[in-house]
Amino acid sequence: MVTPGYDETLLQQLRELLGDGGLRIEHDEVLPDVILRPQTTEQVAGVLRLCSAAAQPLVPLGGRTGLANGHVQTCGEFGLSLERMTAIEEIDTHNRTLTVQAGCILQVAVEAVAEKGLLLPLDFGARGSATLGGIAATNAGGNRVIRYGMARDVILGLEVVLADGTVVTSLNKMLKNNTGYDIKQWFIGAEGTLGVITRLVLRLRPLPRSENTALLAVDSFEALIGLLHWMDERSAGTLSGFEVMWPEFYQYITREGSLHRPPLPHGSAFYVLVETLGSEPELDGERFETVLGEAMEAGLVADAVLAHSQSERNALWEIRDDVLEFFKLGPIIPFDISVTLDTMEAFVEHIRSGMAAVPEPVCIVFGHLGDSNLHLILGTKTAAAFDHEALGTLVYETVQRYGGSVSAEHGIGLSKRDQLHRSRSAAELQLMWAMKSQLDPNNILNPNKIFAAETPGRG
Amino acid sequence: MVTPGYDETLLQQLRELLGDGGLRIEHDEVLPDVILRPQTTEQVAGVLRLCSAAAQPLVPLGGRTGLANGHVQTCGEFGLSLERMTAIEEIDTHNRTLTVQAGCILQVAVEAVAEKGLLLPLDFGARGSATLGGIAATNAGGNRVIRYGMARDVILGLEVVLADGTVVTSLNKMLKNNTGYDIKQWFIGAEGTLGVITRLVLRLRPLPRSENTALLAVDSFEALIGLLHWMDERSAGTLSGFEVMWPEFYQYITREGSLHRPPLPHGSAFYVLVETLGSEPELDGERFETVLGEAMEAGLVADAVLAHSQSERNALWEIRDDVLEFFKLGPIIPFDISVTLDTMEAFVEHIRSGMAAVPEPVCIVFGHLGDSNLHLILGTKTAAAFDHEALGTLVYETVQRYGGSVSAEHGIGLSKRDQLHRSRSAAELQLMWAMKSQLDPNNILNPNKIFAAETPGRG
Repeated sequence: MVTPGYDETLLQQLRELLGDGGLRIEHDEVLPDVILRPQTTEQVAGVLRLCSAAAQPLVPLGGRTGLANGHVQTCGEFGLSLERMTAIEEIDTHNRTLTVQAGCILQVAVEAVAEKGLLLPLDFGARGSATLGGIAATNAGGNRVIRYGMARDVILGLEVVLADGTVVTSLNKMLKNNTGYDIKQWFIGAEGTLGVITRLVLRLRPLPRSENTALLAVDSFEALIGLLHWMDERSAGTLSGFEVMWPEFYQYITREGSLHRPPLPHGSAFYVLVETLGSEPELDGERFETVLGEAMEAGLVADAVLAHSQSERNALWEIRDDVLEFFKLGPIIPFDISVTLDTMEAFVEHIRSGMAAVPEPVCIVFGHLGDSNLHLILGTKTAAAFDHEALGTLVYETVQRYGGSVSAEHGIGLSKRDQLHRSRSAAELQLMWAMKSQLDPNNILNPNKIFAAETPGRG
Repeated sequence: MVTPGYDETLLQQLRELLGDGGLRIEHDEVLPDVILRPQTTEQVAGVLRLCSAAAQPLVPLGGRTGLANGHVQTCGEFGLSLERMTAIEEIDTHNRTLTVQAGCILQVAVEAVAEKGLLLPLDFGARGSATLGGIAATNAGGNRVIRYGMARDVILGLEVVLADGTVVTSLNKMLKNNTGYDIKQWFIGAEGTLGVITRLVLRLRPLPRSENTALLAVDSFEALIGLLHWMDERSAGTLSGFEVMWPEFYQYITREGSLHRPPLPHGSAFYVLVETLGSEPELDGERFETVLGEAMEAGLVADAVLAHSQSERNALWEIRDDVLEFFKLGPIIPFDISVTLDTMEAFVEHIRSGMAAVPEPVCIVFGHLGDSNLHLILGTKTAAAFDHEALGTLVYETVQRYGGSVSAEHGIGLSKRDQLHRSRSAAELQLMWAMKSQLDPNNILNPNKIFAAETPGRG
């Protein structure tokens, strides 16, 4: 079989190495995409040795659910998919750790450990297709970061294959381990540009025994910050969600004729979905209600509705999660940024006034406030007036002006390469590029991702 | 003034750069120790530029409280002390962050943020002299890691000066920030071998509103693990201490004639100090008691005493903290290691049987069980029989055999360089050395620390 445009000798060597089903061709408009499908760490190492010798670039692939196009194959790069390395190798109930191959899907892992009464606390929309290797490579965040942290905080050990095929196995299970440099940190969030993650050890927690959820209406941004601190102080260690919706979000999703009844009337300044995960089902509901009641007395909450059943809880979360609904409004772009809490209100105001120039503007704001993380959905109902570049410029220039982050949780990938300099100094970029050059001197691992051509120090 | 044995031109340049009080000579038996005392990041950068040009090695110095001799000046290295860079630059109550210069002392920072109702959750014995820069450089742990994590988990941003004098400022305040490589992770725990930390941003938490402490007697190691999981499951997010003492520890510290009355009788297999930090002073005490009562009914706890006042709480902690008392027993060595919970009992048994060969052995075991972290105090009451090397060999060979870590929280420094290979593979060491060579090509930053001469890849 001949695959036009590629080094046929290399393809033949890879076919021999990987055996039946080890190489798939996905047809593309320009050049067919070659997908390599190793089954073992040794095969990954073999692939990297062959590709290294042939200077053939590779894009490591997980569930391909990333939102910054870090998984996109361009310029004839081969895909290196971990889809046949999905084993759950061990659920260690003594040490409360999970050891998996990198292709294991988040939801599969979550369900497997739940059967043992344990929690893998990572959670976000793509849970059914995102892989744990991809989650590590992008340092994914999601819904419960305020309580359990990002992927980085959940990962205890990694096995990584370097560009030259060297296997570095650091499958640590211990919480404290200060033996030289913590190598795994280099690869977490590096988006596959420094090595290919093949196995992981993850920290598990006890499964929560109670869950309490409420939707709150809040009158001002000041009250919103006050409420965040109030909940954090009075729900010691159990606050797991503080999801804020600006009014345009809430009003559109619960508009007449939509799928969702509005649990609280329209017209408030902010709506917040608050969640705690506790250990005392008999007591936690009452405590949650007391803490919220006192917040109301303190003037932090204007109105509240508490979920009294799993279905009520789901109904509240479905409002927050129904983000795809906004695509009905017209051409839009979703953004993922961070700004500090003290600048957030001014930041949103600045975006809003920028959007005033757009005909029939769409300007939706929501986010994980406790993590400084906002999502913006910007666009227009007038398709002809949609200006992709102008919207990006508005958001990223404003982020830069307020000292924020151009990517809170989605990473840089291809999509945000040109914006990276807005959140990182020349000295930082130079240092990153030095690391990249050290670990991948031939630039075969996910080239063109994270770093733009004009990165300082890039030779 | 002439300082024998040093490059007088370099010393003169450094004196001019740093001004009055900027250079101190500490007299030593062999060679006087030169201590440089910059007052600004720019001066640190100037020092590094001059020393880099002169190939003069430096040891970054914090509170010099490290337990692995990472701060020791050998072979004519200059000390680079941050003792005049102690400013608390900002306590940001909106974002709940603290920005400090690296020489700021832990306890000073803890007290300053407590005045604003906030908690800097790092805590350990050297709190009165350890600096936040040193804490970051060693990824210090301590008493509340089970709840709040190690230093790495508390640090949001760093400013670092590289070997060539480049200042890399990443004073991030946001919980979510996935913009390229997370550079700060490289420097945390690198023991000053990759750069000099000059400023930090730390994450603050709400000050706990209740504290509950108990001392428990436990009959078996199996029950001990059961109890750890029980407490973790039933004290959602509030478990902050699980300090285990093997019986020899408890019996000696509370022996007749000692400073401490035994709150529980001698003779149990294990003693555990358990602590939770909560948010509801009126309710938490009762809940703590209920959870412990049920653990007793479940057969996990044999006997218990609860602290009912701050002085009772202090009395319990003083038993756990009175580690210096063991130095009265004879020549001893304290060790800091980790092993996984499933191997811990066998590990301790192995050490004990190794100690049986020692005349009048001292074999004390205690530790932060929830973090897999054990401290061992080994020695002999017969001074003439004390064999430093044999004790080290016993501990580190056993750690290696059980797949543990030769340093849980103290780091490698000078003291454990020769043991590092027992916990890290050749591939890991090679990767570490590649990083060191990349960032400090002339090996002027804390040379001879972490890496032994025979480190693989070390040229």
